[in-house]
Amino acid sequence: MTGVFITFEGVEGAGKTTVIQLLQEKLKEEGYTSLLRTREPGGIEIAEEIRSIILNPAHTQMDGRTEALLYAAARRQHLVEKVMPALGEGKLVLCDRFIDSSLAYQGHARGLGMDEVFRINQFAIQDCMPDLTFLLDLPPEKGLKRITNNEDREQNRLDLEALTFHQKVYEAYEMLADQFPERIKKINADRPVNLVVDECYQALSSFLKL
Amino acid sequence: MTGVFITFEGVEGAGKTTVIQLLQEKLKEEGYTSLLRTREPGGIEIAEEIRSIILNPAHTQMDGRTEALLYAAARRQHLVEKVMPALGEGKLVLCDRFIDSSLAYQGHARGLGMDEVFRINQFAIQDCMPDLTFLLDLPPEKGLKRITNNEDREQNRLDLEALTFHQKVYEAYEMLADQFPERIKKINADRPVNLVVDECYQALSSFLKL
Repeated sequence: MTGVFITFEGVEGAGKTTVIQLLQEKLKEEGYTSLLRTREPGGIEIAEEIRSIILNPAHTQMDGRTEALLYAAARRQHLVEKVMPALGEGKLVLCDRFIDSSLAYQGHARGLGMDEVFRINQFAIQDCMPDLTFLLDLPPEKGLKRITNNEDREQNRLDLEALTFHQKVYEAYEMLADQFPERIKKINADRPVNLVVDECYQALSSFLKL
Repeated sequence: MTGVFITFEGVEGAGKTTVIQLLQEKLKEEGYTSLLRTREPGGIEIAEEIRSIILNPAHTQMDGRTEALLYAAARRQHLVEKVMPALGEGKLVLCDRFIDSSLAYQGHARGLGMDEVFRINQFAIQDCMPDLTFLLDLPPEKGLKRITNNEDREQNRLDLEALTFHQKVYEAYEMLADQFPERIKKINADRPVNLVVDECYQALSSFLKL
């Protein structure tokens, strides 16, 4: 593996999708073109099918452990079919959400335990941990407000969780950032998006020694 | 949990479905009616959807670890929605395949390692291990012959694996039976079905102290 694996994390509405898109454009402008932007399930058929089971609002019976295993399964397939080949070609991979999402959502917010959820994810990703993770830091109530105001966005089963659930997700991300300060870089996302992108770009440049 | 959890294992074509059905009838005749016969995914909508992803012959890209995680996810949901409630009501549960299938198919035959596959299944089932497991013992080449001759049976992605794959599954079951002699009872399945059912019935009666 000669590529670099960058992941983006944050509560719903933290702006990950927009930030990654603008960051990719900026990197391209600067001549950095050997790049893959992706998100789970990333157009991988098997992973897309798994995700549609997870996010189906009709699946109110879904057990927390089932959900965690399904996320790990979709993650594995996306990793094997898309991320690992790109890393193998030496690409910079920008990925919207990865293992920390499962630790925060299923491990902490659903109460399954971050250690237990980490173990099944270890089975899924083996040693393919991100080299660097940007945590877009935004209080969950502000994130949810952004989502509600965005009419283009179709609400899924997770968006419909109560605020207390999203507060736990936020709390978990803070814990992870404290626990892995080398890997996880917190970025204040409660600012105009161009400032957020600039800070990510600076941090990434210095990480890549561009 | 006051019920009793019995599972049935064996290679493709070992006759599990028929044996369980006849055993259930025999138990009913003897007045044992508080019983649930099931198999994963057992009509549980979420688990059925997961299984259809696993068994889709078009999914040739499916990674072994993805498959193992999906089986564990379907197992969890079926357990929570169907098996645990029945055990909670004190029922005798007869289940066609359970954790040992994953250990044999994904752990050993796919080469992921039985210990690693056991760990993700532990996450899925927590402490809900079978009280007794019948291993219908039949050489895989005989099992596959039975399947090929059965025109009613639609071949799935696992039936289409090479004989060497099914030989490894068989080998793994033998290892498991040696490792867990208290839980796993080997039944010679290379005999007329009524003899197989009789032996299961005798063993079950003595286990249940009927």
